[in-house]
Amino acid sequence: MFEAAELGRKVSKKDYALRVPALRTELLVAQRELAGAGFSVIVLLGGMDGAGRSETANLLHSWMDARFLTAHAFGPPSEDERDRPEFWRYWMSLPPAGRTGVYVSSWYTDPIIQRTFGEIDDDTLDASMQRIANFERMLADDGTLVIKLWLHIGKKRQAKRLDRLAEDPLTRWRVTSRQRELLRRYDDLRRAAERALRLTSTGETPWVVIEAEDIRYRNLAVAEAVLQELVRRLHERRQPAPATSAPPPTSNGDLLQTHSVLDRVDLHRTIDAASVVETLTAAQERLARLVLEAYQARLSTTVVFEGWDAAGKGGCIRRVIGPLDARFFRVIPISAPTDEELAHHYLWRFWRHIPRAGHMTIYDRSWYGRVLVERVEGLATPSEWRRAYKEINDFEEQLVDRGVVLLKLWLHISQEEQLRRFEERERIPWKQHKISAEDWRNRDKAPAYRMAVTEMVERTSTEYAPWTLIPAESKPYARLEVIRRLCKALHRGLAAQRSKG
Amino acid sequence: MFEAAELGRKVSKKDYALRVPALRTELLVAQRELAGAGFSVIVLLGGMDGAGRSETANLLHSWMDARFLTAHAFGPPSEDERDRPEFWRYWMSLPPAGRTGVYVSSWYTDPIIQRTFGEIDDDTLDASMQRIANFERMLADDGTLVIKLWLHIGKKRQAKRLDRLAEDPLTRWRVTSRQRELLRRYDDLRRAAERALRLTSTGETPWVVIEAEDIRYRNLAVAEAVLQELVRRLHERRQPAPATSAPPPTSNGDLLQTHSVLDRVDLHRTIDAASVVETLTAAQERLARLVLEAYQARLSTTVVFEGWDAAGKGGCIRRVIGPLDARFFRVIPISAPTDEELAHHYLWRFWRHIPRAGHMTIYDRSWYGRVLVERVEGLATPSEWRRAYKEINDFEEQLVDRGVVLLKLWLHISQEEQLRRFEERERIPWKQHKISAEDWRNRDKAPAYRMAVTEMVERTSTEYAPWTLIPAESKPYARLEVIRRLCKALHRGLAAQRSKG
Repeated sequence: MFEAAELGRKVSKKDYALRVPALRTELLVAQRELAGAGFSVIVLLGGMDGAGRSETANLLHSWMDARFLTAHAFGPPSEDERDRPEFWRYWMSLPPAGRTGVYVSSWYTDPIIQRTFGEIDDDTLDASMQRIANFERMLADDGTLVIKLWLHIGKKRQAKRLDRLAEDPLTRWRVTSRQRELLRRYDDLRRAAERALRLTSTGETPWVVIEAEDIRYRNLAVAEAVLQELVRRLHERRQPAPATSAPPPTSNGDLLQTHSVLDRVDLHRTIDAASVVETLTAAQERLARLVLEAYQARLSTTVVFEGWDAAGKGGCIRRVIGPLDARFFRVIPISAPTDEELAHHYLWRFWRHIPRAGHMTIYDRSWYGRVLVERVEGLATPSEWRRAYKEINDFEEQLVDRGVVLLKLWLHISQEEQLRRFEERERIPWKQHKISAEDWRNRDKAPAYRMAVTEMVERTSTEYAPWTLIPAESKPYARLEVIRRLCKALHRGLAAQRSKG
Repeated sequence: MFEAAELGRKVSKKDYALRVPALRTELLVAQRELAGAGFSVIVLLGGMDGAGRSETANLLHSWMDARFLTAHAFGPPSEDERDRPEFWRYWMSLPPAGRTGVYVSSWYTDPIIQRTFGEIDDDTLDASMQRIANFERMLADDGTLVIKLWLHIGKKRQAKRLDRLAEDPLTRWRVTSRQRELLRRYDDLRRAAERALRLTSTGETPWVVIEAEDIRYRNLAVAEAVLQELVRRLHERRQPAPATSAPPPTSNGDLLQTHSVLDRVDLHRTIDAASVVETLTAAQERLARLVLEAYQARLSTTVVFEGWDAAGKGGCIRRVIGPLDARFFRVIPISAPTDEELAHHYLWRFWRHIPRAGHMTIYDRSWYGRVLVERVEGLATPSEWRRAYKEINDFEEQLVDRGVVLLKLWLHISQEEQLRRFEERERIPWKQHKISAEDWRNRDKAPAYRMAVTEMVERTSTEYAPWTLIPAESKPYARLEVIRRLCKALHRGLAAQRSKG
């Protein structure tokens, strides 16, 4: 979940100066409409120490109309607060309709910190998160817009900030022993936070993780996220019932577009042409051995192939199954659902295919269609695809809890390479069946798909089922890499099973 | 929660014969509309052993069109099922759109039984219920109508059924040692079930507890519940977006009306006129002592007064506070919310008044307005008041968890007595301010209010915060009884606090 916020995103001084004026104007206009709109807004700023939560709250106060904002932070409970149920102080802080509360710390802070220090276990953290999810759902049901932003920085950056504060006599007082301790426990905090965020990212109140290393990027991303959610809600309010039309795009809507996790895929990876056959054959042999071992150990595997049109999913799948005994695996191509499938929940068709112990299931496209093609083509409503992230995370958690090895692969190619392959398909007679007018239409929607893929990777890369992005510009490289990743996953799954008993 | 299903409700043979034909016809008509309505129905039959789950499933099959029903029961998981995640078999059983699944056992069965036998603790039960709530919410979000009925019988009845089965050579095989053991653990099962039901009674998928001692009553109540929910959903579908008009009443809609928990209040309770002053004074003295003790022990108390108009709430409150030091308590009369309160969630105004440790807060009307006057007068939408039961239960749980003594009193009088008191108020000059045209209007809506009160008591009488119904036909009796109940609650709260240390 946090990997996608470690891409080194930056905004130049010049770009920043260009973007800010429009963003501030739009924020003010939206805020003015909010005043009479009959609902309230909560902006939660979570994040690592030193990621700039207070600075961000200050920024919102200077960019928006501060008369209608109230900032909140919660320290150790006062005597007054200890006398009452835990949530009393949060209730008392809630903004009335038309106004916005900005939370520098919140109901998440204590449970995450307690888990970090090992004062509570995962079960207790989960129970806390459940209470929080109930609380937020109650607010959302009542019309409150809850925007949850997690400001993420890496361990190095956190250490650097602390050192810098400690050097300056004016800020030295801000560096406490608790902060040093939190830095030492960075990995525990990260784990606790990822768990907390996953359990409370619902369709109505999702978390947005924002990379906070670069201050200009952080500022724009925060303001942009607040603006987008606010504009969307105001738009829905004006357009009651099934909101079919999209909300107007905001001026900076391309910030996330231009800083996608996909940009980090190194497309130039390739493989030595001389040894390609040998290397591939060796990897396939290893795979065949591991698949047999998994079968004997009753370890199930599920491999999900997603990727751009013409990224080479089919070729990869053929190389995977080439060396395998047909008893051990099944390839399931996902296209339009059957009538029977349409009459059920969209996940039902995937539950149907859950393999018995020891088998491998390979999906050529998958349940992610919900948040990709169905989202972009308007086949799922916004509320349907928004809540699908959590539904999918829950589904995959059940698989992994049952011991299934789950590998999710996104095959990535550039738009230029895709064009080249499309043209080749049209030119070469035996490849013509692979290209249709629909492929060209999809290509026109590339920006929307790119947005959907970025969000999919960010929201469904979990501890237990992360996405693996495969550079697929070179077909031989991609095929080998897929097999290697699969071997690694099987190897790890077998080891985990052995260590359990 | 189950107390309201131990009223000895009965339906005579004659009434049964009169009602059944119309009910069956309406069920068939609704089922026919369902076939093309694009959503599926799940009827879950939970309940004690011997409460007649299988018989009820059979009944639904004979009263409805069995071609569109599928019954499900789950024993110990098969090898096939053990190979896959726990919910796999439930997913595979889900009915497609247009059809109905009837569940004789379900995803609830294992966790409740395991908790009953102490194989899991409350935390694990809670985690299971959370997974179930997520699962059901996903189904409900997808349009599935989930009807959850709990068939309740008392311990004696369960024993009797078991004996009868054991006597008959034809049915003796059905009595297993496990059933004998379940009977022995009746109280544990009851506690586990109450907890499970409370945690999974949401606005979209509430549980309905049905008294199952009398077979005719049980049959009618089950069929009626299924019919009502189905008709409501079909009606909403025809009337998209804010469903303002109520669904058409079903022929048997008065079954619950005529078998209300309110009928069991013995209105003839009275008190010896000669000793009334003395007894009341003694009780008040005891109360004053206990309130002081609670103050010193920092034990908070919240008393909720609800009841029919003219039931004598004001008089009771005056007798309660009469002997108390004004520093220790606060009376909060709840009328129309202020502007500021309207700009927040409806529970906000009650969170505001949560007392500090050691204090007593007395509510003259309360948060229950949401499911009473706001429901009946249409000030809250159906989805708002339906989800309020869970919101209120959660709220009260937080109070009780914090150690607050919570006493909820419903003052009950007959319609005749209310009329007498209204007329008296109009006649006697110094009572005239207590009666208005609105009171008379409310009286016209008595059946709707009665329904709302019945449902309120059934849905919000929890283990930790049960309702106390006070017979208030005799004012002296009611006043004394209120003080006695309050003394008892304080006494128990003080003892619990002492035992905790």
